[in-house]
Amino acid sequence: MLGPSPARRAVVLLSGGLDSAVCLGVALREGFAAWTVSFDYGQRHRAELDAARAVASAAGVPASRRRIVDLRGVFSGSALTGHAEVPLDRDPAEMASGVPVTYVPARNLVFLSLAAAIAEPLGARDVFIGVNALDYSGYPDCRPEFIAAFAEAARLGLRDGVTVHAPLVRLDKAGIVRLGLEVGAPLHLTLSCYRGTVPACGRCDACLLRRKGFAEAGHPDPIPYAPEG
Amino acid sequence: MLGPSPARRAVVLLSGGLDSAVCLGVALREGFAAWTVSFDYGQRHRAELDAARAVASAAGVPASRRRIVDLRGVFSGSALTGHAEVPLDRDPAEMASGVPVTYVPARNLVFLSLAAAIAEPLGARDVFIGVNALDYSGYPDCRPEFIAAFAEAARLGLRDGVTVHAPLVRLDKAGIVRLGLEVGAPLHLTLSCYRGTVPACGRCDACLLRRKGFAEAGHPDPIPYAPEG
Repeated sequence: MLGPSPARRAVVLLSGGLDSAVCLGVALREGFAAWTVSFDYGQRHRAELDAARAVASAAGVPASRRRIVDLRGVFSGSALTGHAEVPLDRDPAEMASGVPVTYVPARNLVFLSLAAAIAEPLGARDVFIGVNALDYSGYPDCRPEFIAAFAEAARLGLRDGVTVHAPLVRLDKAGIVRLGLEVGAPLHLTLSCYRGTVPACGRCDACLLRRKGFAEAGHPDPIPYAPEG
Repeated sequence: MLGPSPARRAVVLLSGGLDSAVCLGVALREGFAAWTVSFDYGQRHRAELDAARAVASAAGVPASRRRIVDLRGVFSGSALTGHAEVPLDRDPAEMASGVPVTYVPARNLVFLSLAAAIAEPLGARDVFIGVNALDYSGYPDCRPEFIAAFAEAARLGLRDGVTVHAPLVRLDKAGIVRLGLEVGAPLHLTLSCYRGTVPACGRCDACLLRRKGFAEAGHPDPIPYAPEG
């Protein structure tokens, strides 16, 4: 008798935030053996790399399958890499209009490309990314059109090709919270705050969207916030 | 009276090999102010990084406009990153059949993505890459279809977008040599050998194609080769 077939391998982009933690949970629920890739790109909120480690560990991804790629010095021109202040207390309509100062040029293009580079030698044909277009319509590289175009470029540029999964792309934050609860993602270990503080600031775009999402999902957010947040 | 308009800025991928040196020459001839980007990805032929520096310098690109991005440890699964021997003495038909062991998974996808990430904050809307499809039909990421698909992904994923120029994509090696002479590229400073030896080995695919190209162009190759090559 044959044993169980070996799990298909997938590379999951894991920032340590809510969305990518839920995305990892989806990949695992679908039966993939997951390798996680995180990036140190000089982000203000580098504490998210610790969160990524904790999330991956809690989700059962062994240390040997977790990669952190050092891209310090590559990205510039973003509030997330120190070139302007992170905006606070904005309302959702404001967040959705125009490209925010927290936009990092070509970030998901670079992250997905590196995920593909790491995937192919592993024999992984699947890459997961936790982008969502609804709450962040201002980021061009979170839109489904971009993901589809990237997938086509990767299909043509790689020997074996990869399938790009973006399971959250059409969900809002409340939907992501519900999905995270459903797949058992360790939401209490995630870090979303753009300012990277623990407890979270509660006032940057990322904190505001997250809190709104938990509130709408009717579930308490398990992470601590600063008293003034 | 207005002065001359400032030169448009371009990011040029520069490996230090023949093709990218010619590509840089084309960008400069077209009047672009060039920023060069080279990659240290653990390639056997890391000597090409010295060649890239020499080529850029000879072409008049100041040191402040030359970037080397450290990607050591990212790429694996290639003879160029030490996972198999570089094949020697192959004939051109053999080189053109199948994906060679010197294929580096997702290399041009990653290189172009990083070029785009570097370009946008510089205000550069143009990226140059010296791929050519004829001599290296075995590399999926050197084909015009891939370049076009990447350009579309970059258009959708970036705020400002970039135009991808691949001026050598339909030239053979002899045509590249002729173009290099025409634009005054410092061909004597380029390094093509996959084994990274100086003098060049003369026997790997890169050396064989280069020598054939110079021979067909009727111009002596200005770099030295090993006596047994």
